[in-house]
Amino acid sequence: MLQSDNYPSKALRDAVEAISSLPGVGKRSALRLALHLLKQPVDKIQRFSAAIGNLAEGVHYCKTCMMVSDSETCSICADTRRDHKSICVVESVRDVMSIEATGQYHGVYHVLGGIISPIGGVGPSDLSIKELVARVTPDTEVILALSGDVEGETTSFYIYRQISASGCKVTTLARGLGFGDDLEYADAITLGRSIANRQIFKP
Amino acid sequence: MLQSDNYPSKALRDAVEAISSLPGVGKRSALRLALHLLKQPVDKIQRFSAAIGNLAEGVHYCKTCMMVSDSETCSICADTRRDHKSICVVESVRDVMSIEATGQYHGVYHVLGGIISPIGGVGPSDLSIKELVARVTPDTEVILALSGDVEGETTSFYIYRQISASGCKVTTLARGLGFGDDLEYADAITLGRSIANRQIFKP
Repeated sequence: MLQSDNYPSKALRDAVEAISSLPGVGKRSALRLALHLLKQPVDKIQRFSAAIGNLAEGVHYCKTCMMVSDSETCSICADTRRDHKSICVVESVRDVMSIEATGQYHGVYHVLGGIISPIGGVGPSDLSIKELVARVTPDTEVILALSGDVEGETTSFYIYRQISASGCKVTTLARGLGFGDDLEYADAITLGRSIANRQIFKP
Repeated sequence: MLQSDNYPSKALRDAVEAISSLPGVGKRSALRLALHLLKQPVDKIQRFSAAIGNLAEGVHYCKTCMMVSDSETCSICADTRRDHKSICVVESVRDVMSIEATGQYHGVYHVLGGIISPIGGVGPSDLSIKELVARVTPDTEVILALSGDVEGETTSFYIYRQISASGCKVTTLARGLGFGDDLEYADAITLGRSIANRQIFKP
């Protein structure tokens, strides 16, 4: 039963307020985490603090794909073995990390930095769409790897209209039942589209 | 699908590792939080970092009750209006804050800094029990406000044996059904003890 302002120490209160400003972390969890940190050795607390502080200055964004990077060009864009004619368009840094972890993609990326959302007040000009258009040539394949909800579809459609005139190839992620998914638990839309877009069986 | 070492930036990896060292925060949540921080203005990140860093040096422990404090004596121990003959023994700083939030207690506290746990490797000498014994006089009331599990009971019993010779009064928190609790959902031990320790009805 933690109330607003009965903190025994200003430094503790400041830390709790900082931690509880993170998304999904309430005051109660923040207090638990702050007290945990407080129990750690001084040098560990200082390393923690420095690691957060370094985010302010130690992180750059790749000037080509807007990915988080240690330098002006990220390691993916700098890799000459990758296919620079295949550009996978994603919403966020996390999506790049997820796709990289699959090991199935050998092209490059373009991080939009968000998704078009009239409700969230995010318009096309808030995203790196202009920079994407500038990268696209007629022999490029642009893979739209955005989420399948209304906002993702809207963003995909907007980008398609911006780049299709260049004559590039535009593809999107395959949608269907997940591997190992049970038919019984699939939602009707996914199942319906899986039947409509059925593929040749390759045993 | 985040794998071990495909972070696009060392500063980001350091921050994720620091954040995921917190209890109950996995790598995936840590990445989400680090990327959230990364989107904040530089000065906000720096204030966050400083608030954590201040935990290392800005927080003291009260020399009397071991409570977190801004100075050598905490505001509760320094308050002459409080009853210094009533010492409430608790496991942690959070327990003090919880009891203070009730507004029902006007004595002082003693923070043990843990609980006796043979499995966790915590023995009586790891806790501030000696300091408690030194505070107790024959006219003191010691309120054992520890949790009701085996470790809490063990610690209460250990402390009782250490202080009872002084002739002080030793009490413990009332146990029973919570206010508003439904009989149907109460566990058998709590319900059984609530009947055995029944109280005079005061309408």
